[in-house]
Amino acid sequence: MAYAYWKTGKMEDKAVFDLFFRKNPFRGEFAIFAGLGECVKFLNNFRFSCSDIAYLQEILPNVDQGFWEYLSQLDASQVVTMSAIPEGYVVFPKVPLIRLEGPLPVIQLLETTFLNLINYASLVATNAARFRITAGDGVQLLEFGLRRAQGPDGGLSASKYCYIGGFDGTSNVLAGKLFGIPVRGTHAHAFVNSFSSLDDVSENVSFLDFCCFLSIFCQLAMSWLTKISPILNILEHETNKGELKAFLAYAYAFPRTCLCLLDTYSVIKSGLPNFLAVALALNEYGYRAIGVRLDSGDLAYLSRKCREAFVLIADQFESPWMKKFTVVASNDINEETLISLKEQKHEINSFGIGTHLVTCQKQPALGCVFKLVEVNGEPRMKLSEDVGKINLPGKKSVFRLYSEDGLAILDLIQLCSEKPPEVGKKILVRHPFIESKRAYVCPYKVELLYRDYWGNNGLTQSFPSLQELKKTASDSLKTLRQDIKRELNPTPYKVSVTNEMYNFLHELWLKYAPIGELS
Amino acid sequence: MAYAYWKTGKMEDKAVFDLFFRKNPFRGEFAIFAGLGECVKFLNNFRFSCSDIAYLQEILPNVDQGFWEYLSQLDASQVVTMSAIPEGYVVFPKVPLIRLEGPLPVIQLLETTFLNLINYASLVATNAARFRITAGDGVQLLEFGLRRAQGPDGGLSASKYCYIGGFDGTSNVLAGKLFGIPVRGTHAHAFVNSFSSLDDVSENVSFLDFCCFLSIFCQLAMSWLTKISPILNILEHETNKGELKAFLAYAYAFPRTCLCLLDTYSVIKSGLPNFLAVALALNEYGYRAIGVRLDSGDLAYLSRKCREAFVLIADQFESPWMKKFTVVASNDINEETLISLKEQKHEINSFGIGTHLVTCQKQPALGCVFKLVEVNGEPRMKLSEDVGKINLPGKKSVFRLYSEDGLAILDLIQLCSEKPPEVGKKILVRHPFIESKRAYVCPYKVELLYRDYWGNNGLTQSFPSLQELKKTASDSLKTLRQDIKRELNPTPYKVSVTNEMYNFLHELWLKYAPIGELS
Repeated sequence: MAYAYWKTGKMEDKAVFDLFFRKNPFRGEFAIFAGLGECVKFLNNFRFSCSDIAYLQEILPNVDQGFWEYLSQLDASQVVTMSAIPEGYVVFPKVPLIRLEGPLPVIQLLETTFLNLINYASLVATNAARFRITAGDGVQLLEFGLRRAQGPDGGLSASKYCYIGGFDGTSNVLAGKLFGIPVRGTHAHAFVNSFSSLDDVSENVSFLDFCCFLSIFCQLAMSWLTKISPILNILEHETNKGELKAFLAYAYAFPRTCLCLLDTYSVIKSGLPNFLAVALALNEYGYRAIGVRLDSGDLAYLSRKCREAFVLIADQFESPWMKKFTVVASNDINEETLISLKEQKHEINSFGIGTHLVTCQKQPALGCVFKLVEVNGEPRMKLSEDVGKINLPGKKSVFRLYSEDGLAILDLIQLCSEKPPEVGKKILVRHPFIESKRAYVCPYKVELLYRDYWGNNGLTQSFPSLQELKKTASDSLKTLRQDIKRELNPTPYKVSVTNEMYNFLHELWLKYAPIGELS
Repeated sequence: MAYAYWKTGKMEDKAVFDLFFRKNPFRGEFAIFAGLGECVKFLNNFRFSCSDIAYLQEILPNVDQGFWEYLSQLDASQVVTMSAIPEGYVVFPKVPLIRLEGPLPVIQLLETTFLNLINYASLVATNAARFRITAGDGVQLLEFGLRRAQGPDGGLSASKYCYIGGFDGTSNVLAGKLFGIPVRGTHAHAFVNSFSSLDDVSENVSFLDFCCFLSIFCQLAMSWLTKISPILNILEHETNKGELKAFLAYAYAFPRTCLCLLDTYSVIKSGLPNFLAVALALNEYGYRAIGVRLDSGDLAYLSRKCREAFVLIADQFESPWMKKFTVVASNDINEETLISLKEQKHEINSFGIGTHLVTCQKQPALGCVFKLVEVNGEPRMKLSEDVGKINLPGKKSVFRLYSEDGLAILDLIQLCSEKPPEVGKKILVRHPFIESKRAYVCPYKVELLYRDYWGNNGLTQSFPSLQELKKTASDSLKTLRQDIKRELNPTPYKVSVTNEMYNFLHELWLKYAPIGELS
């Protein structure tokens, strides 16, 4: 396409493109805008290397030499301007998230990369925000999705944008290293499985200390197991002793942060009593265990059973700190699971969420598109065979209007040439396509949604940190009415146009739409 | 976990881990194994950098100094061996795809990366194979998914593994450059929109040649439009002249490969007649257009209408080559769309498939897991609260048994210590969990599925090219009975165990499962 523009003399045509999506994801009524920082980095590095051009010459042998010279000199520094909604804001269908201006072929060449960088980032940030809304603020949410992401890079994107969207940490250690996201994790079943019995002692001489210590530690835990078994109504000899050994070993390695996975053999009959025995033994050395993880079975029931046991043992042995053990749950958790667990009064403090979060199982793609809306000052419009695919023509501004309580009322799209809406002044706003849907609105606060991110000399402002983006998302979500954010049948947020924009759109529509002859 | 192994003297314990999945994706009965080459590369580069260790020291302040020394010297070269099923093979649930042996902490550290590299690769290759089976061999399948993938790297993985799975090309130019995959694409709606009328002439003086040429080319196309309009029963003046101009410009730039997108305004009333007029004009210069693309609306109906028009015009003007124009279709195509289009007798030659292919919308994650099955020669087994999560213990071999017609009968899992099955000899095979399901089988051919990919001195064999992997996948799919591959209610492929393996598994299961007391 770039070649055809160049070849037909359109390489200096000044184009305006909008990047937007047409429908909210996850049957919801909002999205979180993310990925903008990566787009800015891409603009900064936008260049065709010699090897790029050599490859293109190979696959396009009939192209004029002049085009390769043109392409090799191309960059975004002098010629592109970009305005966008700040990253982390709540955003809505049809509202352009990014507006790019510059020479037609240059902006066209940015299309796929921009869509790639925005689509998944916004989708997964929105997904994370929805999990956070559903789970409530009282619990910890950890992203455990690296193994199910689209390669290592997909995993990093997931960790980053889930954190922005409202998660507290990740199991992806590289994401911790690169982005400063808190990393969290526990041991896996393999750790438990690697110990087969209490006699499973390493022959490694340098660990003689450990062996001596362990035999005492082990006796201590065993005596606790004898004490707690009748209270918990379990058979002491039926708990798996390899598991007990594994918990002892883990407590030895991490005395300050000991958190044990209970479901390798049986949570109730083995994992839970073993953990409690180890926690009580560890306490005698002056360390307090952190808690447990459940990774299979009926999580609500098991978490309640764990909590009951914690309280029972805490009361019995006057150790109130045991009541507060953390319960981490994982195993294919999605929004529906969170709702169901809540209804069943779960006792979980922390969720490790992987597959459903990072793959966005409920809707794995946000349909962002990139549409030409103006060339050399003239508006452009695509009709398509589907009415839903029509775009809003022309170079536009978007304002978010707020009421006195700080909540957003609607987003108002208008032509750049129009006067901005004013605080305290009544404005007629219209549905972009349904003629009869009109309303007057008198804003208490008006916010121009666009900021300039890329100007004629490159980057026009410093980019916020991940922490700042996380705060932006959280603050922006607070401006959204609760009924718009709820999981079941949320109320749509209004995206309106001015009367002038409405008329402009519909005149152009009629102009472009061919009249047929029915036969 | 690695630290706890080290700290408790288990760093020299010899572990065997299996990587496998538990359930076929997409409600199907097979998967394509992919991503192995990337795992080998990872093994080759497996090392902790100084900055990695500095970061880990920061987040784990209470860890013994000796561990960091141990970690900084770690690599996979001397200590790890890996056997695996060849990449591209059809594979089935419960069958270990990769078997890794080595020191417990080292293999444990590979887990997440291996799962990340195999999960998505195998999932998307399987998805591509399913699209290919559904579409049939007669059509071209192009991967158009970069914009919906999880970042640029996710997009590259998608292009690569879709190609292995049976696609013909990609729109991802970088994938073409890096992997040699054929790149294919057409122009977008923006190209059409960028031309507003026939007078839309660039002022760029260096393109005077083009302007002069274009006015003649344009007159020619207009005269063709006048001739074909009555035949197609459309109103000549109602076709969009900006679109006509865009097609002329595209034909001028790509006279040998002109393929026009028809649905910017209206396929029937504008795009189709404009394209035919341009194709007929271009033909007078000695070039033949390639075809058209449809990106919205009723694709079956529109493709039939296009084909009818091609035939009508071809017959009218004695240009039989026009009957064979390629029709490319895109727009949210999934397996169900392909089936429905077939039933409606579409006239499409080539499908551009994006979102549903790369995000694997029908099931966006393959649940591969990585389980410890043996330590120091002793089998290990995880029970879990869900019976479905039980793994097959011990170091195992897998054989694929074939019948005389070359079709695979079943995969047979057995202990490494057992004698391999022999050609022509009757063997008793058993369902791993259901006691009553047993059968005798007499194989015509026996294939040991595992090859050695990584030995004590690193890579043990050269790795196949992408083309070879594509052929492996295609050949392997041919060994699978049609009813196993069909979309609706496919027959499950049998994964069996030997009698010895069956007894071994069930004895161990009873040994590990605690007996409770009902209360």
